[in-house]
Parts: sequence; structure tokens; C-alpha cells
Amino acid sequence: MFATRSFTLLCRRSAASAWRNNSQSAGERLDISGIYPPIATPFTQSEDVDYQRLDDNLKKYGSLPFRGLVVQGSNGEYPHLTPQERVEVVKRVKQALPEDKLLMAGSGCECKSLLLVTPCFYRGRMDSQALINHYTKVADSSSVPVVLYSVPANTGLDLPVDAIIQLSQHPNIVGLKDSGGDITRIALLVQKTRSQDFQVLAGSAGFLMAAFAVGAVGGVCALANVLGQQVCDLAQLCVSGRWDEARELQYRLIEPNTAVTRQYGVPALKQAMQWFGYHGGVCRSPLKPLSKADLEQLRVKFSSNGWL
Amino acid sequence: MFATRSFTLLCRRSAASAWRNNSQSAGERLDISGIYPPIATPFTQSEDVDYQRLDDNLKKYGSLPFRGLVVQGSNGEYPHLTPQERVEVVKRVKQALPEDKLLMAGSGCECKSLLLVTPCFYRGRMDSQALINHYTKVADSSSVPVVLYSVPANTGLDLPVDAIIQLSQHPNIVGLKDSGGDITRIALLVQKTRSQDFQVLAGSAGFLMAAFAVGAVGGVCALANVLGQQVCDLAQLCVSGRWDEARELQYRLIEPNTAVTRQYGVPALKQAMQWFGYHGGVCRSPLKPLSKADLEQLRVKFSSNGWL
Amino acid sequence: MFATRSFTLLCRRSAASAWRNNSQSAGERLDISGIYPPIATPFTQSEDVDYQRLDDNLKKYGSLPFRGLVVQGSNGEYPHLTPQERVEVVKRVKQALPEDKLLMAGSGCECKSLLLVTPCFYRGRMDSQALINHYTKVADSSSVPVVLYSVPANTGLDLPVDAIIQLSQHPNIVGLKDSGGDITRIALLVQKTRSQDFQVLAGSAGFLMAAFAVGAVGGVCALANVLGQQVCDLAQLCVSGRWDEARELQYRLIEPNTAVTRQYGVPALKQAMQWFGYHGGVCRSPLKPLSKADLEQLRVKFSSNGWL
Amino acid sequence: MFATRSFTLLCRRSAASAWRNNSQSAGERLDISGIYPPIATPFTQSEDVDYQRLDDNLKKYGSLPFRGLVVQGSNGEYPHLTPQERVEVVKRVKQALPEDKLLMAGSGCECKSLLLVTPCFYRGRMDSQALINHYTKVADSSSVPVVLYSVPANTGLDLPVDAIIQLSQHPNIVGLKDSGGDITRIALLVQKTRSQDFQVLAGSAGFLMAAFAVGAVGGVCALANVLGQQVCDLAQLCVSGRWDEARELQYRLIEPNTAVTRQYGVPALKQAMQWFGYHGGVCRSPLKPLSKADLEQLRVKFSSNGWL
Repeated sequence: MFATRSFTLLCRRSAASAWRNNSQSAGERLDISGIYPPIATPFTQSEDVDYQRLDDNLKKYGSLPFRGLVVQGSNGEYPHLTPQERVEVVKRVKQALPEDKLLMAGSGCECKSLLLVTPCFYRGRMDSQALINHYTKVADSSSVPVVLYSVPANTGLDLPVDAIIQLSQHPNIVGLKDSGGDITRIALLVQKTRSQDFQVLAGSAGFLMAAFAVGAVGGVCALANVLGQQVCDLAQLCVSGRWDEARELQYRLIEPNTAVTRQYGVPALKQAMQWFGYHGGVCRSPLKPLSKADLEQLRVKFSSNGWL
Repeated sequence: MFATRSFTLLCRRSAASAWRNNSQSAGERLDISGIYPPIATPFTQSEDVDYQRLDDNLKKYGSLPFRGLVVQGSNGEYPHLTPQERVEVVKRVKQALPEDKLLMAGSGCECKSLLLVTPCFYRGRMDSQALINHYTKVADSSSVPVVLYSVPANTGLDLPVDAIIQLSQHPNIVGLKDSGGDITRIALLVQKTRSQDFQVLAGSAGFLMAAFAVGAVGGVCALANVLGQQVCDLAQLCVSGRWDEARELQYRLIEPNTAVTRQYGVPALKQAMQWFGYHGGVCRSPLKPLSKADLEQLRVKFSSNGWL
Repeated sequence: MFATRSFTLLCRRSAASAWRNNSQSAGERLDISGIYPPIATPFTQSEDVDYQRLDDNLKKYGSLPFRGLVVQGSNGEYPHLTPQERVEVVKRVKQALPEDKLLMAGSGCECKSLLLVTPCFYRGRMDSQALINHYTKVADSSSVPVVLYSVPANTGLDLPVDAIIQLSQHPNIVGLKDSGGDITRIALLVQKTRSQDFQVLAGSAGFLMAAFAVGAVGGVCALANVLGQQVCDLAQLCVSGRWDEARELQYRLIEPNTAVTRQYGVPALKQAMQWFGYHGGVCRSPLKPLSKADLEQLRVKFSSNGWL
Repeated sequence: MFATRSFTLLCRRSAASAWRNNSQSAGERLDISGIYPPIATPFTQSEDVDYQRLDDNLKKYGSLPFRGLVVQGSNGEYPHLTPQERVEVVKRVKQALPEDKLLMAGSGCECKSLLLVTPCFYRGRMDSQALINHYTKVADSSSVPVVLYSVPANTGLDLPVDAIIQLSQHPNIVGLKDSGGDITRIALLVQKTRSQDFQVLAGSAGFLMAAFAVGAVGGVCALANVLGQQVCDLAQLCVSGRWDEARELQYRLIEPNTAVTRQYGVPALKQAMQWFGYHGGVCRSPLKPLSKADLEQLRVKFSSNGWL
């Protein structure tokens, strides 16, 4: 009955419940700080899921200092996968994931078979109280920690600050991924929830440094599919207080990030992955390939910033 | 692979293919003119689908001069139904539907088991060409006629006029349900597609008369769940050119219509159904019941217009 | 102290106060029903106001069955005129205006020297009560009848329905020009204010017929600068209940109307005026001339509908 | 002929032209880094400008480490001032301004009598090229340096990045005030214009620290009317690289800042000024006083952050 697209459930490769017992006895929350790529789903030319190439990508990601991976997000073309494909993709990711990495999934990883839509559908009726009720129900019943997810560009609904503050007190809600990019809001959320040990992740590499500056602890960044090491470097510079170096690196990531997200979308992300040694490939219909002009512009966004 | 939430596939209770052969030999398109309620789904107090009460409603609707019924729309809380429940709801509706009525369904009625999301998800990439490609693919492969569906309030995406004009030439695309309510656009669409015998339906009772005035031939109207006869009367007055009477009736439907749609949503629709002898009942979470103040306002919207 | 861009004050060429005394003793409101072009301001090549060509246009408009003229609207490039130019333009229009025509002006016609901005500036604070207070103050102190003006595309602020209903009871507020084009709202406004003899004008030729269908009594239409007789014909067909003929004419006006307003703006309006025997000419900076491609498209919008 | 609301012209109390000659011979741009309050205009109970109280405020501001003052912005209720009042207010501010402070004015300071509207009026036609043409014309003819001003919440128009980059090369355009708060955009603008010695100012205290983190050099902050020393302290902490202290101070300024700007507007700004020893007073109509409930909420925003 739960709508979980606005949620991200956390799974460790093994022993999620073991962890949970431990962490609860210790009174500590799961540490989710760090960088996560929301992974893409490679397809064959006939638009079937290419599991072999997915495995190849996962192997490469395994050598990068990511905190974990996100599956079944919009960058994975999740809305265009069948339920069976979703299950299989998550299974593959779990198998490839190193022991110490986290897996965040758009909807329950191994357990759930129902496809459950996001509560933004009736957004006109989704006031703070409705959202608090709903998310509390999900968090109560989830065997794994929950990360809230606010992405107004997709849902037309910004999870209200007062709802987040109240939900941050739930023992099974450990953080928030905020993709809106309103840095004032992110700072306010950090201020208002830090007594709860609540953790805020930036939803994009474009404002990652600014988010760290105001107290965020990591990011879920599409660009990390392409420039994974560099995004991790930026996070590390921020954590170390080397802000001048961080700023220079941040500048060079903005245009590539915008290009593979808002500007040209998943087809651009997959194209850029090809340039950097990953398997991207075609998108599933109705997503179209990039036009030649867009492709050229995309290349410029990377080359003019010194990445190609 | 197809995203079909933006589509509405038409089924007659029986013999869809028979009809199809007939109509094709006659070179005529299916006549979809008339009024359709997008039916609500009654739940028990424990939020299970109440199939018995659904049947009761369907029986009552059977006696009204509707052209047909729409299932699996947002008024049916379709996003909060499981795949199994969706199949069962459609089955019930098909059983109850009189021979001469049409059934429009948000996704394939009896045949398809995959749940397929709407192509608005990557709306930033959904230009006219992408949408034309996509919808053509669906219409090519569908065994039943297709009605386009543009609902920008929900999808953030207005199906572009040029795409609709081109798609109107497809032999298996018979019409459009337009819920945006931009009357200039609706008039333009009628003008530009009438050589194709393409049929435009208004997506709301609020602008039903104006839509008829500029050439629409019917409507899919949430309010028809409550005031079904009256909405049909309004359509009939328009078709007969009795515009002065139509105007007076239209006025009285605007506030009730806004109240059960944009203003208070599905909980209000179900409450109003109760007042008029239908089974509404609770909504499934996270939709909340109306507050007392909203309930009182809802009643005023009906009573001040002479319906209660 | 009053912000009057949201208002339109009505002046008859002479004897506004005489009329006012008469009408008040008779207990009747000024009849504003009919069509008004919001006139353009011709410039010379050096971007000075070309008063001679303005006079020429006014002479031609004098022979058309307009109810009156609107000056100092956005189509007159009012925001780019100096206060002195505004005064002079209004003076010229008053001189040219036949006795029986009305003059509506964006801000007081002959008298006022202060330029007063619209109350939409602090739109976040402009709730219904603030707007009612403000407009009541203006209407109380105005020596000529007032027409409310709601144009959300420009102001980001839709004059709320409840405010309009209350303001319709003011003896010196005679009507509303609504440019939003939400036909449901227009119908509701007519329904809710007709006991006050309040008159609603459509703010565009694009939805003029639909507005008449739901009870509007006229329109302020940029397209009337170009196709003045045709827009008046459309109004007359609606008033006479010849809806089938009206519909055919309405269809042919939609694309030309959109082209000279939302799509290509004032430069297109002035270009089209040239084609139909009026003086349009260049726009004042920073408005740019049309590109060649836009110019060609503009011509198609008129020619494909049989006007060129 | 110029629309200058999107511009801010810089005047030093004396010798603007002297400075200009000096700086040009030195080949350097005016240094605008630092904090500026956009000053409020006190009114008497009868809504007349209270010049005495304005002087009192200016005296107090003179003792704070501001880089300068901004007059004739929206916080000064500029849209509701008459042209004469605007001239007089600027005159007073110039008299009170210490030698080493800068004066930024919404439209030319001492010289101009024409009121010139912002080019956002025809925003649908204001593409990058139109805006570049326009601003270049103004900067060419201005005797004082020009600061661009992008405030999409008011104008519905975000000055495009490519236009800013090109305009940054103009010798008389020294910087940008960006009130949109999109931190990714601000970082990109700094990156793309720093070879030109172009200076970016944050348009709000809410994202001041984040703006400094990505390379901005100051801010025009409504909150500086109330907590002037604290906003200057925040800027100083950022400039000194004391980011941990800056973060703590930034947190405490977010809620007060939102309250006196977006949330409750100028009436709240003036109320808060009273609490901190400045003259605020009533607003001019149609701006209404705060309701009691809003007033109480406003107080909480300051007290819960330790300022009251």
C-alpha cells in the first residue's frame, strides 16, 4: 500500500537486520556520508537490458571510493523497466557490491514485489501531515533504514521543511537526499535536524561543494557515473576543509554535470560514460538518442573544462 | 516497453475486434462522442477494494445516458491499487457494462499485464518527435482504438499541438481527452484535425459547454460520478444548440466540479457520491479524509447551486 | 499613491462627469459591451513617436464598429514611453475619438501626472483583502468608471474570484477585462456577478467566442488592430446567437491572434498592421525586429487562414 | 529610453567622475566587494515619507562596516514613491553617506528625472541578444559603473548566463547582483567571468555564506537593515576562511532573513527594524500591516535564533 518512489531504502549487501540490531543497541544511526552514483542501466541495441555490461560497470565502480550505489532511480531508466527487470538489476548490483558499500534502492531491494507509486500523484492533497503520516508508516514497517528523497523537478512537490524536521526524529529515518538545490533550504534543514544526527545528501554534483559548506555530508550524483573519482575528490577536499582547492574542482564539474542531467538527460549521461570507459549505450524508447548538435555541445562541456 | 498512462485504450464489452473489422471495412472511426465518468474505486473501512459496492455503483451508472466509462484514472486511485486489484476492477467493470457502452482504460484492459509508466517521466526530453514516435508505436500495436490524453496538471507536459495534429492522421488514434482547459487550444485542435474525423473530449465538466461551443464532442468528467444525469443534460443541450439553457446549467456545475477535483480532490468526490446515492467511502492512504471545515465548504458548493 | 496599472479608467470624449450624474440618477451602469483594440504606438525609424501616423490609424479605426479604444496598454509599448509622450498620445486619441466611442486608459486620461505602478509588485503580500482595499480606494476617488484588469501572464497575479465578486458591488466599478483565458473562471465570474450588472470583457480574440458563450459581453483584443472588422463580426455573430458561423470565424482568428500576441509579440502586431493598411513600423528598443524566419511564419499564420 | 530597473548604477558621494578617470587610467574596476543594505523608507502614520527618521537610520548605518547602501530597491517601497520623493530620498542618502561608501541606486542617482521601466515587461521577447543590446546601450551612456541585477522572483526573467558572460566584458559593467539564489548558477558565473575581474554579489543573506564559498565577493541583503553588524561579520568570516564559524552564524540568519523577505515582506522588515533600534514604521498602501499571528511568528524567527 506504500508509495515509495520518494523513499530510498538502504540495504547492505548482507546482514541488514544484523546491522540494524547492532546499531540500535548501540543507539547509533547508519553512517551514510559519502558519494553515490545513481547507476545507469545499459541496454543492447535492441533495447534489452545488457546484464553483462552492467556487471562490467559495477566492477569498475567497485574500485572507486564511493560510499555506495543507488539503483532504480531515474538515471537507471527505472520507469521504463519491467518489474522483472527491476528485480534482476537489483540482484546483479547486490552480487557485485563490496561488503563495505551501501545499496540504496528506489523501492525495497530484495523483498518487495509490488510496484508502489510515489505519493506525489495527488500532490494537491499532500500537505505536511499527509506526508508525515505516510512516511512514518513506511519507516515503521521497513526492515532497513530509510532516506527521504525530495526532488521537486520530477514530482512537483517539495517535501516541506517542517515535515522533514518532524520525520528526522524517527529512529528508522536516517537522512534526506535533496535534489532541489535550494542552498538556503539545505542549510536550514541541517541546522534544524542536527540534534537528531540526521544526514543530508546533495542530489547533484552541481551544488555539492556549497552543500558541504553548509553542512551536508555527501551526495547522490549522476555525474559520478562518469567522473566518479573526481566527485569523490571534491567531497574529500570539502571534508578536509581545503575549500580553495574544492572551489576550483567544483567549477570544472558544473557544466559537465548540467549537461548529463537537466540539459541533455540520460542519453547524454550514457554517451559520456562511453567516453570515460564505461558501458552506456542506447536508451530505451521513448527516450531518443542525442542529435549531432547536442552531442557536439556535450563534448564541449567536458573538453572545455579539461576532462576530454 | 510502452508507456501508456497518457493513452486511453478503448474496449467494448465484447467483440472489440469484431467492431474493429466492421468499422475498418466501413472506413469509419469509432464514434466516442458523449459523456464518461472516470469511475471511483470504493474501499472498505480497512482500505480494501469493496467490489460489491463497486458493482452497486456500476448498476446505477448503467441507467444513465453515458457513452461509456473510464477506469484506472486518477479518480479511481489507480496509483494506489496493486496490479492484481487493477485487473480485478477492470474485470468487474467489463461485466457490468451494457453492450452499447464503451470502456476506456488507462492501460490495456484485458490483455496486458505489464504496468507501464507514462512518458512524461523524462519530460525534459519529450519533444514532439519523441512523443509522436512513442504514440505511433503504441497505436500501431494496439488491437483497440487509442485516445490521446493530455493532462498537464498531473504530468507537467502538454501534448504539443503539432504532435496531436500529426497523430490525428493515424487510423487507430481516434481522439483526444484534453484536461488542460485552455479553450483557445481546444478550438485550434478541433480546427486542425477535423478533416481527420478526430474527436476531442473535454477533460472536465467545468469547461464542458465552452468546449462544445468550439467543437468538442463530449467529456470525461469526474463530476459525472455524482451528477451524471446533469452532465449528460448539459451535453445534450449543447448538441441541440440550446445554448441559453446550457449556459444556465453550466454555471451551476462549475463550483461543484471544482470542489470535487482541483480544490478538494478524490476525498471530496467520494463524499459527494455518498450524498447522491452512490458508494464513495474512504480513500486509501496517504490520501486523508476531508477536514470538517472542508466538508462544510464542499456541501455549500453543492447546496448554493441548488443540488442539495 | 494609487497603483493603477491593474485598472482601466473610462473616459468618454466629453462630459464624463455629465454622464456620471445622469447614469447615477438613472441608477444604471455605463454599458461597455463591445470590441476595443488596445492601440499600438507608431514610431519613426529613429524610434520617436510618429503622431501623424497615429492619427492616420485612428481615422481608420473611426470607421469600424468598435465600442471604443484602449490606450496605454502593453500593445502601445506604454512601458517604453516617457510620461510626456503618454500624455500626448492620450490627447491625440481623445481628439480623434468619435463622440459615441469610449476611451479606456491604463492610467487616468487627461488629468494625472504621477506615474503609479501596479500593486502586483509586492505580489506575495497582495491577498484578496489588500487588493479589495486598494481598488476600493481608487474607485472611490475616481471621477470616471473603473474596469478591473487581471492579466496573470504579465503580473504573476490573478485577481482572485472572491475579490472580484466583492468589488463588483462598488457603484463605480463596472466590469473586468480578463486576459488569463481560463474559461471556467470567466463563466464563474459572470455567474457570480450578474446580479450586479457587472460586465466581463475577454482580454484576447483567441477565446472571444467561448467567452461570449459563457456570458461575456465584449473583448479587448490586440488582433482588432489588424482585423478589426472581423473581430467585430465575430462578436456580432455571438450576440445574435449564430454560433455555427461564429465558430467558423473564431477558428480562423486563433492562429493570427496567437502570432501577434504571445508568440511573436508587439513587433509582429506592428508588422501585421502594415499588411492590412495601418501604420505599424518599428518598435522601441529593447524590443527587436522579427527575424526573417519569424516574419515568414507570421505571414503563414495569416495566409493559411485566408487573410492574406 | 532606457529601462533601468534591472540595473544598479553606482555613485560615490562625491567625485564619481574623478574616480572613474582614476580607475580607468589605472585600468582597474571599482571594487564593490562587501555588504549593502537595500534601505527601507520610513513613513509617518499618514504614509508620508519621514525624512527625519530616514536621516536617523542613515546615521546609525554610518557606523557599521557596510561597503555602501542601495536605494530605490523594492525594500524601499520604490514602486509606491512619486518621482519627486525618489529624488528627495536619494538626495538625503547622498548627504548622509560617508566619503568612502558607495551608493547604488535603482535608477540614476542625481541626474535623471525620467522613470524608466525594466525590460522584463516584454519578457517573452527578451532573449539574450535583446538584453545584451539593451544593457550595452545603458552601460555605454552611463557616467557611472553599472551592476547587473537578476531577480527572477520579481521579473519572471533570469538574466541568461551567456548574456552575463558577454556583458562582463564591457568596461563599465563591474558586477552582478543575483537574487535568484541558484548556487550552481552563481558558481558558474564566477567561473566564467573571473578573467574579467567581474564581481558577483549575493542578493540575500540566506545564501550569503554559500555564495562566498563559490566565489562571490559580497551581498545586497535586506536583513542588513536589521542585523547589519551580523551580516558584515558573516562576510568577514567567509573572507577570512573561518568557515566553521561562518556556518554557525549563517544558520542563525536564515530564518530571520526569510521572514523579512519572502515570507512576510517589507511590513516585517520594518517591524524588525523597530526591534533593533531603527525606524521602520508603517508601509504605504496597498501593503497591509502584519496580522497579529504573523507578528508573533516573526518574533519567534528572531528569538528562536537568539537575536531577541
